Amino acid sequence: MENLAVNPAERDKPLILFGLGGVGRALLSQIGEQRSLHREKYGLRIRFLALCDSSGAVVEPQGGFSDELLAEILQHKEKGGALASHPLGQSYQSPKAMVDQTGGPGAVVVDCTASDDTADALLLALAKGCQVVLANKKPLTVVQEVYDGISRSLSNARWETTVGAGLPVIATLNRMVSSGDEVNRIAGSFSGTLGYLMTGLEEGRSYSETVAEAHRLGYTEPDPRDDLGGVDVARKALILARGIGWRMEMEQVEIRGLYPERMAGLSVDGFLAELPSLDAEYGARVASAAAEGKVLRYAAALSEGACSVGPTAVAKDSPLGRLTGTDNLVELHSRWYSPNPLVIQGRGAGVEATAAGVLSDIVELR
Amino acid sequence: MENLAVNPAERDKPLILFGLGGVGRALLSQIGEQRSLHREKYGLRIRFLALCDSSGAVVEPQGGFSDELLAEILQHKEKGGALASHPLGQSYQSPKAMVDQTGGPGAVVVDCTASDDTADALLLALAKGCQVVLANKKPLTVVQEVYDGISRSLSNARWETTVGAGLPVIATLNRMVSSGDEVNRIAGSFSGTLGYLMTGLEEGRSYSETVAEAHRLGYTEPDPRDDLGGVDVARKALILARGIGWRMEMEQVEIRGLYPERMAGLSVDGFLAELPSLDAEYGARVASAAAEGKVLRYAAALSEGACSVGPTAVAKDSPLGRLTGTDNLVELHSRWYSPNPLVIQGRGAGVEATAAGVLSDIVELR
Repeated sequence: MENLAVNPAERDKPLILFGLGGVGRALLSQIGEQRSLHREKYGLRIRFLALCDSSGAVVEPQGGFSDELLAEILQHKEKGGALASHPLGQSYQSPKAMVDQTGGPGAVVVDCTASDDTADALLLALAKGCQVVLANKKPLTVVQEVYDGISRSLSNARWETTVGAGLPVIATLNRMVSSGDEVNRIAGSFSGTLGYLMTGLEEGRSYSETVAEAHRLGYTEPDPRDDLGGVDVARKALILARGIGWRMEMEQVEIRGLYPERMAGLSVDGFLAELPSLDAEYGARVASAAAEGKVLRYAAALSEGACSVGPTAVAKDSPLGRLTGTDNLVELHSRWYSPNPLVIQGRGAGVEATAAGVLSDIVELR
Repeated sequence: MENLAVNPAERDKPLILFGLGGVGRALLSQIGEQRSLHREKYGLRIRFLALCDSSGAVVEPQGGFSDELLAEILQHKEKGGALASHPLGQSYQSPKAMVDQTGGPGAVVVDCTASDDTADALLLALAKGCQVVLANKKPLTVVQEVYDGISRSLSNARWETTVGAGLPVIATLNRMVSSGDEVNRIAGSFSGTLGYLMTGLEEGRSYSETVAEAHRLGYTEPDPRDDLGGVDVARKALILARGIGWRMEMEQVEIRGLYPERMAGLSVDGFLAELPSLDAEYGARVASAAAEGKVLRYAAALSEGACSVGPTAVAKDSPLGRLTGTDNLVELHSRWYSPNPLVIQGRGAGVEATAAGVLSDIVELR
């Protein structure tokens, strides 16, 4: 049985966790596994003030959340139970109301949702002296003012996993910005799914075959258009653009998706059935890129104040051109990283790598 | 004229800088250029308590170091003057004595030397409540206990530029360690000079021709054996090994250099004249690697508790195998980054990129 008494030499780090999907659950389990590492090496005692998702919340009971209680709550969830219907559970009006109820100086609000309803909760948290960690891209991609409010103090906010999961993209960008290095161009591939698709096309497979396979293997969202449309990549591009100081709204990101407007209204099955009608077009695009010594990537591009995402022919021997498979990659071109960019590459998705990135963010906040 | 009055809303960050070589001078000039960025965006006022090198020190005069005074001190140095002979200069007994004289809580001791005489100064600084930033590898590669003392608190010490200059190698490793991810293998190329040499060999040029050219172009140290011996790369490998928790001394790093013992005693000219005697051997090594679909890299390798540096045949289609030219690259293989590693690549040397990395470290320390 875990001893929950507070050692006065340790820094107490109480979390208010929003989101108990894959990342939230992986985070809970990683925090449990790493408890002695965090105590011994970092003098940190991470605990929970509240676990919240769209089905309700459980606020820290007298004596704290024991491992047994956490496991029991997750079990309750897995059986389809709402958090509000747990014996210790409650419903709550909004994330903001929950932060108002439970948050205070020293607490960390961790947003592992994909909700667009947490932005004001995060801003309230910062105003109350809490710190915030986001895996959720939405609050950083609504109006610029919200981004400004969240990002104002790097001592109090981290959002590393919003771009490239656990890859240190935001941390690196922040380091470059803090030294005054001028990041003047960014190119990157931020979707493992679309990376898989582009590699398939490069290998000479047809568009329809590759998309259908990715869908069958569960690499895409249930509706593959949620990946193919490019909006998720565009959110990441916007977060990077704002990270280098560009003031920009989502509407200003040019998004070129991988299916035509006429296929937007179809059912998923209807969409999959229509895919072969795009094979000739994508075959031709790949061939035309190859004729110039280039390859097609679904790339985010930031350059000269403009931000776009879409299929892009890039030099075969550039970092992005050499990328294959589902790894993410970002090229950061700057004053000191020129002509060759600073490149970061690796797994850019997955609940475990993402949760590990969230946990690093939590530990880094002092 | 710069207003040197302290704004009470700003955090004062006074530096004690050791080392006025290329990196130290670039740091001085970058701090000057970025003064308004640091004030406006980070609320930081970076100033100097003391500038020190092996020729003496100038301690902050009444009213602080103005830009004019800093420029005048650098000019004095450029004319060959010792710092001790500057009108405001003084001599000092040791870095430790200087820290004892000028250091106190809130100060940051910045080691931009290549000296092995700063370790006890850094430990004293930490004991006095200072923070430390190292570009100098030496203090981190003497006995393990010194490394432990410097690295004990990540709130108070940074040494990002000791491996890969401004590339975020240490920060990334620290993030992985802090989340409990297990880094089980590291492979990397940490010498632009040796990268240049290996690319030359891969292109079919001879060993002697490539080394002589690198020497002529100033890519190598004045005595090219200082690069070819591999000791500098071994120091970086040891810092990485210690960074993932291995307890290890420099003697335990296996170093395979690029010239035989019999050439160690020659003059530089004698050494250069002898180079062609190694051409056949290196030609054969490259050919033998190529026969297995591999390429030769001067690589650091950490795996299963062992740490080595030397010429290594790596798969042509691995990140390290695809690397060409002078860029550095590190592959971090871990529990969450498997089978594909997390890869960081880019310029790993240069006074400006290194100084920018030191400055990022200074800003990150809260």
